Amino acid sequence: MQVNLERIKADILELSQIGRNSEDHGIYRMAFTDADIAGKRWLIDRIEAAGLPSSIDGAANISATLAGTSDLPRVLVGSHIDTVPCAGALDGTLGVVAGLECLRCLKESGIQPDRTIELVAFSDEEGRFGGMFGSQSVCGQINPEMIATMTDMNGVPLQEEMSRHGYDPVAALDAARDPEGLHCYLEMHIEQGPVLDRLHKSVGVVDQITGLFTWSVRLKGEANHAGTTPMDMRHDAFMGLADFAHEVPRILEENGSDRSRATIGKAQILPGATNTVPGLVEFALDVRDTSMDVLEDLADAFRKALSAIARRRSLMFEFEQKSLISPVECGDLIVKTIQQQAEKLQLDYEIMPSGAAHDAQIMGRMIPVGMIFVPSKSGQSHSPAEWTAWQDIEAGANVLLHSLTEMSSKPD
Amino acid sequence: MQVNLERIKADILELSQIGRNSEDHGIYRMAFTDADIAGKRWLIDRIEAAGLPSSIDGAANISATLAGTSDLPRVLVGSHIDTVPCAGALDGTLGVVAGLECLRCLKESGIQPDRTIELVAFSDEEGRFGGMFGSQSVCGQINPEMIATMTDMNGVPLQEEMSRHGYDPVAALDAARDPEGLHCYLEMHIEQGPVLDRLHKSVGVVDQITGLFTWSVRLKGEANHAGTTPMDMRHDAFMGLADFAHEVPRILEENGSDRSRATIGKAQILPGATNTVPGLVEFALDVRDTSMDVLEDLADAFRKALSAIARRRSLMFEFEQKSLISPVECGDLIVKTIQQQAEKLQLDYEIMPSGAAHDAQIMGRMIPVGMIFVPSKSGQSHSPAEWTAWQDIEAGANVLLHSLTEMSSKPD
Repeated sequence: MQVNLERIKADILELSQIGRNSEDHGIYRMAFTDADIAGKRWLIDRIEAAGLPSSIDGAANISATLAGTSDLPRVLVGSHIDTVPCAGALDGTLGVVAGLECLRCLKESGIQPDRTIELVAFSDEEGRFGGMFGSQSVCGQINPEMIATMTDMNGVPLQEEMSRHGYDPVAALDAARDPEGLHCYLEMHIEQGPVLDRLHKSVGVVDQITGLFTWSVRLKGEANHAGTTPMDMRHDAFMGLADFAHEVPRILEENGSDRSRATIGKAQILPGATNTVPGLVEFALDVRDTSMDVLEDLADAFRKALSAIARRRSLMFEFEQKSLISPVECGDLIVKTIQQQAEKLQLDYEIMPSGAAHDAQIMGRMIPVGMIFVPSKSGQSHSPAEWTAWQDIEAGANVLLHSLTEMSSKPD
Repeated sequence: MQVNLERIKADILELSQIGRNSEDHGIYRMAFTDADIAGKRWLIDRIEAAGLPSSIDGAANISATLAGTSDLPRVLVGSHIDTVPCAGALDGTLGVVAGLECLRCLKESGIQPDRTIELVAFSDEEGRFGGMFGSQSVCGQINPEMIATMTDMNGVPLQEEMSRHGYDPVAALDAARDPEGLHCYLEMHIEQGPVLDRLHKSVGVVDQITGLFTWSVRLKGEANHAGTTPMDMRHDAFMGLADFAHEVPRILEENGSDRSRATIGKAQILPGATNTVPGLVEFALDVRDTSMDVLEDLADAFRKALSAIARRRSLMFEFEQKSLISPVECGDLIVKTIQQQAEKLQLDYEIMPSGAAHDAQIMGRMIPVGMIFVPSKSGQSHSPAEWTAWQDIEAGANVLLHSLTEMSSKPD
């Protein structure tokens, strides 16, 4: 049994036209926009065209079901079809389309699995309203206050957008599932990093999903005239940031693992004039690792470094933790199963962490999860340049198909 | 003979109401705005109220003249009354108001100087349309193309603003003076730095005005996902900037003088998302010294550092020199004269460079110049917090008065 690449191709290319901007060639299918709703409608049509029952839950997650022979906890497979602004064609979409193709193959093969297999396309993974809305709803991590207060970057409330499309926002609370009824969750996704592409391997078997913390840090010095203020009378906030950036590699070497990452991706320097010594910098620090202990050690080390720099340069500093997401271990059995299927298919695979967050990370707090990666050309994602060779997509989808067959056939 | 502090006070406080914003308490008298023109009108009234003839040249520079007994080259004294947005009450204004007070004192004393003394308030020192427009016009450094193309930050042409107020922009070319007719230029100004305030000295005798170069630098790497891109596969443009900032103190120590300054005052980090490795940074470098040789050595060292960092981090780099202003040596005779007057008045003074650019820097390319500084409280300027104690203002104005008397009485 194997997937039909032509059907996967057709689905990806068709869906990529929904929300496509003809100027920058990017896809704009942000959660609960008209394009996203059109995408959901397209998906329901594709599910029904495959002769599978479709359903939609209170969080507007779309499901397709292939009934199993038993009442055993079901196997979930999926990803999301919402996108970041100016997205490529694969992020999220690939997991949903490949999952649908797996259901079609299984249905056509006539083999009814022991466990029901359910494909889910989760709402707002990408975070127009914060991210992982659909999977959080399924895991019961949403409450009425969140529903009432979530807004997008422009202040548009989630409630308003959901109502506009005929969804009852409060019904998202009904999307919570009983973990007893769920066996595991599988997600195929593009790597979004350069590792598989560099290694020329078709498939990544994810063993851990990295956790992360992000800080918003302010260093406050004194804005002064760049010409009239002697170097030793300055309290240059930007130089404090430069000192801190310089410490990042040391801190990772001393306290991190080879799966640690630290990034200063955003910084605002104020007042921001060529001839003025910066009096204030605000910057974001994004730190990731697959171990909570390592993350804690890194946080300690970063805090100490900031504090020492602030003292040395007579700056005030404050930081706010903007997010903390725990790392997730993939389920041993699922990792082993995916690995075995890759071996059976004679594919060159890599066991690796996921550096990005995914719906699998949310689902992993409730049930065992597994992820299959395919290479991202040059590591690019979240851009129209995002791409994966069709043969790698085919390889990954076949690993997904056989892993799903395994996971749904064994009532362990 | 000494200045009348009450008259200086009154003039400063009166002029500070023109262009004052009641919300942020800042003064908005940017060149050729309605407020600036109202300031010019106010100045003409004050000159005439003192019984002195006023005049206005093609660059809208306002003059007051105290006729001398001879046709010897005249002594100029002045500064500017235009401001940056949200300015304090003293920058520029103090030099004009103190100069006017000196002319009033001399007139009242009945002593006619050997040389004519002319007070000038130069147009657009602060740079709404580029800076030093008035003094450059007087020095013949303006040409028709400049007049035709100069615009402010919002794209408003200088020509349009001048015409709106009834000035013929092309007449700025007529403002050029014959250096043969000019003996020297004196300017009193707030220090705009912390040195005199820290030293508790009333007066600074400027011996050199620093030159500067500014660069706009681009470091181009590759934007990547902060979670999925291993540290050793990054081309992080921001980390290149941090490396460069870290080299600044070493470069100044190795190649600079104790009058060298280097500032990174402005930086834009792109795409500028918490979870994205920066692919591009654009930043401004502002480097100052009183020696052209030192400036050249510094430029070489900064270029080498940038190039080495770009190589090490696989970044592309390019830089553009946005400005280059040569340092100016103040006239020996004037420096000595100012120093002697400060000593006679038993004032504690400091011989020091000017770290900021002034009209004196432009005038210094044509005729000998001298500058008198008074302390800026906490080194603050270009803000409503800019201030100088009245007794320091009085001390500085008295030094100006006696220096003017000296410089206008000796037909050397």
